[in-house]
Amino acid sequence: MDAPFSLEAYLGTQGARVEALLRKSLERLGETTPPVLRDAMAYSLLAGGKRLRPVLCMAFAEAVAHGPVPPATLDAACAVEYVHTYSLVHDDLPAMDDDEVRRGKPTSHVVYGEALAILAGDALLTEAFTLLSTGPDPVRGALCQLLACAAGAAGMVGGQVLDIAGDRPAQEAYLSRLHALKTGALLRAACTLGVASAGGTAAQLRAASTYGEAVGLAFQIADDVLDVTASAEALGKPAGADAEAGRHTYPAVLGLQASLQKARALVQTAVQAVQELEPVPGPLAALAHYSVERQA
Amino acid sequence: MDAPFSLEAYLGTQGARVEALLRKSLERLGETTPPVLRDAMAYSLLAGGKRLRPVLCMAFAEAVAHGPVPPATLDAACAVEYVHTYSLVHDDLPAMDDDEVRRGKPTSHVVYGEALAILAGDALLTEAFTLLSTGPDPVRGALCQLLACAAGAAGMVGGQVLDIAGDRPAQEAYLSRLHALKTGALLRAACTLGVASAGGTAAQLRAASTYGEAVGLAFQIADDVLDVTASAEALGKPAGADAEAGRHTYPAVLGLQASLQKARALVQTAVQAVQELEPVPGPLAALAHYSVERQA
Repeated sequence: MDAPFSLEAYLGTQGARVEALLRKSLERLGETTPPVLRDAMAYSLLAGGKRLRPVLCMAFAEAVAHGPVPPATLDAACAVEYVHTYSLVHDDLPAMDDDEVRRGKPTSHVVYGEALAILAGDALLTEAFTLLSTGPDPVRGALCQLLACAAGAAGMVGGQVLDIAGDRPAQEAYLSRLHALKTGALLRAACTLGVASAGGTAAQLRAASTYGEAVGLAFQIADDVLDVTASAEALGKPAGADAEAGRHTYPAVLGLQASLQKARALVQTAVQAVQELEPVPGPLAALAHYSVERQA
Repeated sequence: MDAPFSLEAYLGTQGARVEALLRKSLERLGETTPPVLRDAMAYSLLAGGKRLRPVLCMAFAEAVAHGPVPPATLDAACAVEYVHTYSLVHDDLPAMDDDEVRRGKPTSHVVYGEALAILAGDALLTEAFTLLSTGPDPVRGALCQLLACAAGAAGMVGGQVLDIAGDRPAQEAYLSRLHALKTGALLRAACTLGVASAGGTAAQLRAASTYGEAVGLAFQIADDVLDVTASAEALGKPAGADAEAGRHTYPAVLGLQASLQKARALVQTAVQAVQELEPVPGPLAALAHYSVERQA
């Protein structure tokens, strides 16, 4: 009988793999890239973090491939993290959230200045598409489409625009729409990119989409909850920042217990969606639970 | 005997075609995109301009296809203009060049605020890849690669980083490297995207690359010259802005006459490169000359 699945060991192994892949991906930039730009990109890209998106991407590809994943999966995993990192760099800018600390370190514009932080973000976004489009596999165009749709005006950037708008109603429907775009779209793309890069079926793509949508929202609700309940040390940023910024959150709209209940129901939806992809509960089920049960 | 080629008529026809394509491309954004984001994207995208890049893209595709161009060419033409527009929106930001007027209109951040200008730029860049990757043609992945390489850290963004660096030597080699990245890479991509989207050969791709590189630099030298010689009214922005900003320019490094000579030599290089693609001088030759002979 197999040993029970250990998420901790899995995250350790896959996280280290992602770190190595990200480091290697930066070597591609070559001598034409100004060194200070590469430094600024590396500073934010290699600042740690949970690497949840690339880990999900690889987990879905492994579930589809039943073994080693193709190079396109590794590029997709990096590309998603590039896009996630660019969004954090731009979100932190003085004109946006004006955050000076991220993952316990000074933010990009504090270290490199605003102009270079804007450009490092632009470069990370663009290089995500270089990574994703470079390779002989005919699937590359479809991967670019998945990522661009998730990251664009009707996805992540659209969600960010909703988030900075002045007239945000304190309603659950509005909050769920905001997060479906701002966090959900890219997290869902991490899942569907994993399936598509490994040659999955349309049914597997649908399962990854349902899973990613549910886990994305659960993850965001958990973030809102952690902002209320966790310590600044565990978060790597000031706690209570949402309330201080007058930001509507799930705990503020639904209450703490109902928020947690909703997040756990979403985890069940996600786990059910991948039952065919993962008949014996493994990384996909564990990662869905982790999105809510984590402490930071 | 055919009537002689009229660049004015050609630019009128193709420019109107590009305007219509760009307008139509924005409809794709759909109801999920926040209206204010679509407005900000449209404001900058439809602010006029010469549309040189999309016109070049379509001209190369027509030279390859000897007739109607495929949908991928039209998407590529729009995608290049999206990327060009995003770069202007971000360049104009207070943290960058801090320009309040562009093409005779207030810049994006003056109208929409800095946060939305940053996000509108991000969305334009991302949607360029949505446009380019959406369609059944197997060439889409290769098109994304051409655009991403040109726009990224070893291309346009890299050039922008060189441009804001403090220690710029007043040397021709440095200036040509700067412009090869900042302006040249995207203009060259406009040409190669035209060829690639229309199924051109490797030799045709090389010709487009040589042409684009030469015209890109000629165009930039002409810009530097116009900044010295043209009126603010013709430019749609204050004249003499480069000198005032202490920026190194070709006229400052080489002198006015030598700058013009260099630009005209580059035009000859470009025209020679496309002699097989365009045996009877037509749009490609005329556009090369126009890059230097224009008045604004």
